[in-house]
Amino acid sequence: MQASEFVVPGFDAAGVAAGIKKNGALDLALIASRVPCRAAAVFTLNRFPAAPVQYDRRLLAFNPTSVHGVVINSGCANACTGVEGAANARRTAEAVERALGAGDQTIFVMSTGVIGVQLPMDRLLDGIPAVVQQLRPEGWPDAARAIMTTDTRPKLFTRSVQIGGETVRLTGIAKGAGMIHPNMATMLSTLATDVHMAQPLLQQALHAAVNRSFNRISIDGDTSTNDTVLLLANGLAGNPEIQESDDPAYGAFVEALTELCTELAQAIVRDGEGATKFVTIQVNGAISDQEAHQAANTIATSPLVKTAFFGNDANWGRILAAVGRAGIQVEPEKCALFVSGGPAPGQHLPELQLVEAGTPLPYAEADAAERFAQPEIDVRVELGLGQGRATVWTTDLSHEYVSINGDYRT
Amino acid sequence: MQASEFVVPGFDAAGVAAGIKKNGALDLALIASRVPCRAAAVFTLNRFPAAPVQYDRRLLAFNPTSVHGVVINSGCANACTGVEGAANARRTAEAVERALGAGDQTIFVMSTGVIGVQLPMDRLLDGIPAVVQQLRPEGWPDAARAIMTTDTRPKLFTRSVQIGGETVRLTGIAKGAGMIHPNMATMLSTLATDVHMAQPLLQQALHAAVNRSFNRISIDGDTSTNDTVLLLANGLAGNPEIQESDDPAYGAFVEALTELCTELAQAIVRDGEGATKFVTIQVNGAISDQEAHQAANTIATSPLVKTAFFGNDANWGRILAAVGRAGIQVEPEKCALFVSGGPAPGQHLPELQLVEAGTPLPYAEADAAERFAQPEIDVRVELGLGQGRATVWTTDLSHEYVSINGDYRT
Repeated sequence: MQASEFVVPGFDAAGVAAGIKKNGALDLALIASRVPCRAAAVFTLNRFPAAPVQYDRRLLAFNPTSVHGVVINSGCANACTGVEGAANARRTAEAVERALGAGDQTIFVMSTGVIGVQLPMDRLLDGIPAVVQQLRPEGWPDAARAIMTTDTRPKLFTRSVQIGGETVRLTGIAKGAGMIHPNMATMLSTLATDVHMAQPLLQQALHAAVNRSFNRISIDGDTSTNDTVLLLANGLAGNPEIQESDDPAYGAFVEALTELCTELAQAIVRDGEGATKFVTIQVNGAISDQEAHQAANTIATSPLVKTAFFGNDANWGRILAAVGRAGIQVEPEKCALFVSGGPAPGQHLPELQLVEAGTPLPYAEADAAERFAQPEIDVRVELGLGQGRATVWTTDLSHEYVSINGDYRT
Repeated sequence: MQASEFVVPGFDAAGVAAGIKKNGALDLALIASRVPCRAAAVFTLNRFPAAPVQYDRRLLAFNPTSVHGVVINSGCANACTGVEGAANARRTAEAVERALGAGDQTIFVMSTGVIGVQLPMDRLLDGIPAVVQQLRPEGWPDAARAIMTTDTRPKLFTRSVQIGGETVRLTGIAKGAGMIHPNMATMLSTLATDVHMAQPLLQQALHAAVNRSFNRISIDGDTSTNDTVLLLANGLAGNPEIQESDDPAYGAFVEALTELCTELAQAIVRDGEGATKFVTIQVNGAISDQEAHQAANTIATSPLVKTAFFGNDANWGRILAAVGRAGIQVEPEKCALFVSGGPAPGQHLPELQLVEAGTPLPYAEADAAERFAQPEIDVRVELGLGQGRATVWTTDLSHEYVSINGDYRT
């Protein structure tokens, strides 16, 4: 896609190399709106929230309706950094506010990278004039690149939707790669839209979209200290302001936002650290959606299941064993297990049933192995107890994951 | 140690190759008492309990005071095998009872290996006369070897304790390697003793010992379908029967049993699939022992933490991030983190404090790296909130783990 296709009216973006990363790659991004925005955000549930997360939480509470943008650095998470880290997050925001000529308390801050190291403030502050100078409507690809850590490719997508006779644009960037797990991951995402919508509804829309996208992915079960999804809406689309959640325009916006978040979330999984497979885990028939989600997550985070995916091994016993320890209601004699797979979405082999009533069917081993050998694998577990359903996207666990994470800081 | 050192009066053990494993290794073990035993057992909490687990649960309920032993096969878990699997577990027990001339419902059954495959009953039943013929007091090393799966070495230990003027012997075997996690692992253990003790107290003693040993280890967070710890006590030591838990003799026995179980549990961790490190995680100062245990487990099962151990990487931020998502009460500004390490137990470098009040101290990176590079690593987290304490033993996550589990069945 061309950089111009990501443009959202009124928003500028940029990414520069400020020298925070040792290798000279882009490491400082800025997204700014020319007019005041409304903001909504979802933050990590980790009890060691990083300094920027604490800063942003306070900012969102204090000023959710008149913000100007977000500055994001990679290469250093500013987590477990105490009062100095808190001061550095604030100084970063203030420096951007000054450089933009924006008011106090109008800029969010995000950081990602190694934990327990203070931000190199000299280099970061030196980079701010440069990144402000680079701001332009077509700057999204640079911004997407500047927030990468162990990501191998930028994540940048866009959507548009007709609302009230106007075209509403939504563009989002995200970074992921490691520490990816429901309830937010080492995952940063900034979403910009020109929709005109009341701020409380924006927050509601973001929660709904995140729960059906970012909170459905898992790479290694680790939830990071920095996870943040930020939604900025500047209202320039000119649609009549959406004020009620029963307005069909609200539903249309949430659907577009969910699609965008899902595309970003799935891109994070596909680029998971060391991932060689994209795995969809579907659990149906649980006594509740919550229990289905818990079972799907337990499968998705089992190292034994994930190494079997890596090894093209149709070792479905590990999948049922994971369901069995998920702490949910299960009756083995009602369980069924299906697998499918293919080279790409929409090109899957026919689904093969491996287990019926808790015991294996006499399928041909080669048929099962063929499906587990595909780069995209779909697993469906039917519990046969109720109407609870959930889908989770995950990866395999490969040698490369061990290499990346055994050697992250060196 | 000599095989004679493991002898427990009245018990015989044996291990033979029945052809259940494809490679011709020992795969069928038998432990038998010449006189009726009392039994106690702890079983997996997995909701897909294997056929032998279901069989043993019923047997223990029906006849806890007059059993004769246990038959154990490796190479096939007899899990997710439905009514045929249940019949096969029963037929195995009955065949051993006949071969021993023992009464009905006196033999326990354990299985370990791949899930979802029926036992090769012809070979198993053919092996029973052979394993019965091999029974002898010094047969423990063969039995320990016959229950191995991906274990690289047998786990066999013994203890003795003076009770009521008599020497009480305890000998135990275990197998582990993969799917190791608290609340039982793919872990089988049989413990034999000649203590004379009332059966309800035996069960109480086993629970106490297991909670402080086998339930404190974690290799990959997976709890298997087959986990069982069985304790057989034939009373031949001749000590006055222990009938009350406030009898000092009870305390002495529990202590010896806990020591034996801890030695077996730690041996399982040291031989964990692909393990290159033995890691002790201690969490103190939680608001309860249960919360301390939860935090220690979350650290121990984090792939990011475990790959950092593998990579000799002093990436302590991942340890605090794991504590932060453990779902326990935490105040970051009260947290401290210490690390030590050495080539072997008792040869550790002095403990180094890395974190105070939630932020890093100015320690020398080389001092931290030196400790993380040791084969034995001790991590101590102080939460500063209360008196809750827990210790968990675990391993790193290595390339070898991925290789073993990506290719388990081929």
